[in-house]
Amino acid sequence: MSPKEIVEKGMYERDAFSKWLGIELLEVREGYAKVSMTVRPEMTNGFQIAHGGITYSLADSCLAFASNSHGRHAVSIETSISHTKAVLPGDFLMAESKLENLSGKLGIYTVKVTNQKNEMVALFKGTVYRKDSEWKI
Amino acid sequence: MSPKEIVEKGMYERDAFSKWLGIELLEVREGYAKVSMTVRPEMTNGFQIAHGGITYSLADSCLAFASNSHGRHAVSIETSISHTKAVLPGDFLMAESKLENLSGKLGIYTVKVTNQKNEMVALFKGTVYRKDSEWKI
Amino acid sequence: MSPKEIVEKGMYERDAFSKWLGIELLEVREGYAKVSMTVRPEMTNGFQIAHGGITYSLADSCLAFASNSHGRHAVSIETSISHTKAVLPGDFLMAESKLENLSGKLGIYTVKVTNQKNEMVALFKGTVYRKDSEWKI
Amino acid sequence: MSPKEIVEKGMYERDAFSKWLGIELLEVREGYAKVSMTVRPEMTNGFQIAHGGITYSLADSCLAFASNSHGRHAVSIETSISHTKAVLPGDFLMAESKLENLSGKLGIYTVKVTNQKNEMVALFKGTVYRKDSEWKI
Repeated sequence: MSPKEIVEKGMYERDAFSKWLGIELLEVREGYAKVSMTVRPEMTNGFQIAHGGITYSLADSCLAFASNSHGRHAVSIETSISHTKAVLPGDFLMAESKLENLSGKLGIYTVKVTNQKNEMVALFKGTVYRKDSEWKI
Repeated sequence: MSPKEIVEKGMYERDAFSKWLGIELLEVREGYAKVSMTVRPEMTNGFQIAHGGITYSLADSCLAFASNSHGRHAVSIETSISHTKAVLPGDFLMAESKLENLSGKLGIYTVKVTNQKNEMVALFKGTVYRKDSEWKI
Repeated sequence: MSPKEIVEKGMYERDAFSKWLGIELLEVREGYAKVSMTVRPEMTNGFQIAHGGITYSLADSCLAFASNSHGRHAVSIETSISHTKAVLPGDFLMAESKLENLSGKLGIYTVKVTNQKNEMVALFKGTVYRKDSEWKI
Repeated sequence: MSPKEIVEKGMYERDAFSKWLGIELLEVREGYAKVSMTVRPEMTNGFQIAHGGITYSLADSCLAFASNSHGRHAVSIETSISHTKAVLPGDFLMAESKLENLSGKLGIYTVKVTNQKNEMVALFKGTVYRKDSEWKI
């Protein structure tokens, strides 16, 4: 399976929560994913801004897509996120991954989340464990 | 406002995403919150397990409730989460905060998320910035 | 080898930097370590307080001792530290680990570092990768 | 004071531990620092590789220099580091900061540490709190 097939057919089509979020796949290559979504009112917290879990979820989907695109099953083991700017209902968010390091068992990626003004709203770092099993049709 | 009023009326009642998640407030005291939720099928990812963003969101709501209960507005600036066990649809999750350190401007809390078998599914650490402004009726 | 033998003979005796720091082993059990050190003037930074690397190093040694004590070789893959209080020359620091989760391949530990007044100066979280190889005489 | 004066005279000259490490300042600009050091035998742990605290300390000094170079006093509040490759005695390490986000009170920087083969040995992320006080002669 190609990186695109793994992510589109293996992952995204069966990913109910990414669909609820309205995530769209903009680009997928080996070790890389770019995704977007628009923030809706039901995604806000008590401050009337996007719940931190929304931005995290977008970044975490981006990590899952990027880290599984190499062909081996990859699962997140430790992630961190810095929320740098409030996200409002109606904001259009884009998340883009960067492969920082890949070894036999582990992969490290950073994901930047930006809004429609190209302002960074979150910086995310994720470490995944790479299993021996592979994506197959 | 008491810790309970801040969290129940100031935060939870207006928190649309926590309501979508089905989060329930089990206990609130100054610097402490315990919350629960049940995982639904629309919360799963392409592996048919709960999306990492679901567990993160539960822990992040718990952090928000605990860190605002002192009376001052508190916003999350940096959080990390380790996913230690897969979460399945139907699982009943509980998140409980622990105040680790409180200074003038910053608060640090850990949040443990466990399932119905009392197994830890995630360990979360969050740092909040404490504003000068306060919760008021 | 017992947890104590692994840490004392296998690790500590050959650990040149822990010795330079003046780290002492106070207690070792399976999955647990308690260590101490006194901060010296050559450990300070430009603010005349202990360099962040000193507190980190003490916590990281504590993690290494605790996570290797189970018998399998364990290496740190991701760690984070919150510095909660300035550390001064002459301060006596104690670090104590807590096993948070252990699975086949991974272990998660938190380490609290306190000073002589029992104030927390740092909270550390570490994830280790557990190899198949074991400690042997 | 210029960024270079703040870091060289205000910080580095009085930073005893950075000097013990043998850290050299290669470049300083506003929001940016590049530093290097050579790993010595007394910096190793029980595995005969560099103690994790050595790489952390180099990255943390780099963060301190970069984040104070703007003119305001900045203190680290939360840092994380992923160790991606073993570091050996004799290795020549270089650390370079990148400013990720700057707001009124907070700054976020990543620091990459590489060895003499230009392989990444660690990825570090740091959040600093920016005080109102400034560097002055």
